Amino acid sequence: MTTTAQNSACDLILFGTKGDLARRKLLPAMYQLEKADLLCAESRIIGVARDDMSSEAYAELVLTNLNKFLKEPLDTAVWQRLQQKLVYVQLDLANEQDYNKLTAVADITKRVPVSYFATPPSLFGVICKGLAAAGLAAEPARVVLEKPIGHDLASSQVINDQVAEFFKESQIYRIDHYLGKETVLNLLALRFANAIFAGNWDHNSIDHVQITVAEEVGVEGRWSYYDDAGQMRDMVQNHLLQVLTLIAMEPPARLDADSIRDEKLKVLKALRRIDISNIQEKTVRGQYANGFVAGKAAPGYLEEEGARPNSKTETFVALKVDIDNWRWAGVPFYLRTGKRMAAKLSEVVICFKPQPHNIFHATYSQLPANKLIIRLQPDEGVEIQVLNKIPGLGEHMRLQESKLDLSFDETFKSQRIADAYERLLLEAMLGNQYLFVRRDEVEHAWKWVDGILEAWKTSNEPPKSYQAGSWGPVSAISLLARDDRNWEE
Amino acid sequence: MTTTAQNSACDLILFGTKGDLARRKLLPAMYQLEKADLLCAESRIIGVARDDMSSEAYAELVLTNLNKFLKEPLDTAVWQRLQQKLVYVQLDLANEQDYNKLTAVADITKRVPVSYFATPPSLFGVICKGLAAAGLAAEPARVVLEKPIGHDLASSQVINDQVAEFFKESQIYRIDHYLGKETVLNLLALRFANAIFAGNWDHNSIDHVQITVAEEVGVEGRWSYYDDAGQMRDMVQNHLLQVLTLIAMEPPARLDADSIRDEKLKVLKALRRIDISNIQEKTVRGQYANGFVAGKAAPGYLEEEGARPNSKTETFVALKVDIDNWRWAGVPFYLRTGKRMAAKLSEVVICFKPQPHNIFHATYSQLPANKLIIRLQPDEGVEIQVLNKIPGLGEHMRLQESKLDLSFDETFKSQRIADAYERLLLEAMLGNQYLFVRRDEVEHAWKWVDGILEAWKTSNEPPKSYQAGSWGPVSAISLLARDDRNWEE
Repeated sequence: MTTTAQNSACDLILFGTKGDLARRKLLPAMYQLEKADLLCAESRIIGVARDDMSSEAYAELVLTNLNKFLKEPLDTAVWQRLQQKLVYVQLDLANEQDYNKLTAVADITKRVPVSYFATPPSLFGVICKGLAAAGLAAEPARVVLEKPIGHDLASSQVINDQVAEFFKESQIYRIDHYLGKETVLNLLALRFANAIFAGNWDHNSIDHVQITVAEEVGVEGRWSYYDDAGQMRDMVQNHLLQVLTLIAMEPPARLDADSIRDEKLKVLKALRRIDISNIQEKTVRGQYANGFVAGKAAPGYLEEEGARPNSKTETFVALKVDIDNWRWAGVPFYLRTGKRMAAKLSEVVICFKPQPHNIFHATYSQLPANKLIIRLQPDEGVEIQVLNKIPGLGEHMRLQESKLDLSFDETFKSQRIADAYERLLLEAMLGNQYLFVRRDEVEHAWKWVDGILEAWKTSNEPPKSYQAGSWGPVSAISLLARDDRNWEE
Repeated sequence: MTTTAQNSACDLILFGTKGDLARRKLLPAMYQLEKADLLCAESRIIGVARDDMSSEAYAELVLTNLNKFLKEPLDTAVWQRLQQKLVYVQLDLANEQDYNKLTAVADITKRVPVSYFATPPSLFGVICKGLAAAGLAAEPARVVLEKPIGHDLASSQVINDQVAEFFKESQIYRIDHYLGKETVLNLLALRFANAIFAGNWDHNSIDHVQITVAEEVGVEGRWSYYDDAGQMRDMVQNHLLQVLTLIAMEPPARLDADSIRDEKLKVLKALRRIDISNIQEKTVRGQYANGFVAGKAAPGYLEEEGARPNSKTETFVALKVDIDNWRWAGVPFYLRTGKRMAAKLSEVVICFKPQPHNIFHATYSQLPANKLIIRLQPDEGVEIQVLNKIPGLGEHMRLQESKLDLSFDETFKSQRIADAYERLLLEAMLGNQYLFVRRDEVEHAWKWVDGILEAWKTSNEPPKSYQAGSWGPVSAISLLARDDRNWEE
């Protein structure tokens, strides 16, 4: 593997190092990068929090968390190498003077400061100011921003403005962890390295596209937080729209960050607006009632711990999205995502147009169309549904849908699938922005999502109820059935 | 399974019932049709030969052959049903009066006479005459002709004229057993039931096509017979050109015999002529020398039992075929077939054009093109070669060719794959001509093949030697290498 990681010495300054994200994801990811020998020997990980603590105590804490959250036994040799990189700095985020403590540890002459904000976004501004005061914001310094970046367009602009006061856009790395997923990245390879797909990737060949991100889990004890957001803000504005842009974008001329992000942005700009005039036709929002998930009784959303009765927050969204450009005219993208659904499943289904003429009508009155199914998780892989002749004798040729299948797990047996955060941390340290979301992307996504949220608010209809453990409200099925289509099963 | 087999009572009159083909293929096929309940209860199998023998003795003989050549234990119940259909008629083929013995057994008021000529083609004329005299040639009577139908265009016309004197073209069923193969038939399903293939099936998407029919066996004790024919007549004129027409033909508007055969004929008419002016550039002929096949020493063609020294007969042919029509302009079809090759393998490889622009040049200086591989035998199936991202971290996106695979054996586990002769016998008894070769097809194939044979004769170059157990002479590799292409491995 060619990589310049060895030449990219960084001070990874981890704000919020005691938080859930750092403990569960970021520190285990750094461990894996160390294990894969992808961390520069001179790099440092500078944990930052409010508590007074020695670097030794911090290392102990990291070790405890690794033992808890690593999905494999800890390798002592790896840990020893990682441990040598760990430094702790106690900091009151609000105290600008305190940031000088970082300067004592970080060395901008030898290492690039990469500040990772795993904190509430309300703190982004003050941290930026402190970093700037300590001389840690000037180029080539970088900053990595965790979601949520705002609650709507206006609030995202406030946050982005605060950061932009101290960092240029080229220094800012906005995380959408879906962009770090192996299978999401493979979308680029599938689309742009394979002529059989590239040549068929438009309204001439494709009938419609389905994107499903279904979760089995509910709100997981975060009822109040979730209730302020809802599935639209929590999943659609970021993850589903990011997947949609990767599927729908024009081929970029190069693989660099702005070539790709320019094309993604064009898709976001081309999304047909959904407002009060078409909200009924284009959207379904749902909220789970009690039911059974994987054989276990699950409470309804309004019965969850900490729930406020009468909440109208959606836990399920289905959308019919039109992209008003030359490539996708007349090709709807159906999106659905929800909590407490029948299975944990993320997949993209490209439904091709049916054959224009059917010579097999004696046995198949309507030929089913071909499908390309890209399974993002679980059981990552790609399959193509085609019709084959069923072996056998008889007067007519009998056909059957069958699958040409590629399972990543089977194909790339020896390869461990890296967690999204490993990739994103590595790319941030390498200074590659292509897997991070540009400000204009965030803002166009919010603008479009705000229109839907606004229309829901105006219409004042409650979300449709669906049973926990189902595939969402029946209206989500009708959304496609009206167009004589079905969700892939 | 819907079939009208039950309503198609036939007298299957089997000329040459004691010959190799009848014993190894036709009678086991009739057994399988009986087992699958596809034979009409009223149907009869009338074995015809020169020897004096009772129907009981004939049944004994059939039983012996079934026990020898069936690939499964004989089912007594099936045999009892089949046995009741067996009748033997002793006949001197040259004696026109003798054919009246058939009339005593066959009943044209109840059953359609279907005469199967498993005899040398030199006898076809005299048999037809006898059948006509006995009143067994008039419609709806049918006649099934085994290959070889001639040795070149002129001799095939003689045979076809002899048969045509007594049977209309609509009564004539010319066998090419490749058309009875499950996987060859599936070509129709793949091409015409799947928009993702149909929409890409031309010079815009396809770079070239490869058709390989490789045999491990040598001449199998038939040296003299084979030496008169050679691989061109024995395999290319019939099987390879039939597969080529199915791959290359325009979509027929209907699935009936003449809709399909009209389109196949158009392909044969569009084959660019190969003559002395381009024979070097477009063809390779080879003859095997001694070597090793599957680990066992194998003699050279000229060392086989019964061999005549200095024979220039080809046991291997490779061709670059151009189809001069709108669909295939600039898309060569490379054909190769040979005896004593490295493996028994029949497959079609559709090589798509590469991506016009490569955004992955950092890791792949030249993107390999997609391929659709249709394995006709063994291990029948379909696979698509695509590029996927190799899971893993690193600065560049690394790609790997991987296969979306459909194995018939795994997909249609419960289905026994019927032998080609079962299907062809059934279709002949049902009166479906679509899997049989029309006279004009045979003649256009001969015309084209004659041109090549003539040019080889004129050039007077000996065939290139190749080692038994190899993939043919090196010139066959150069044939593609000159075009910057390779045989699929």
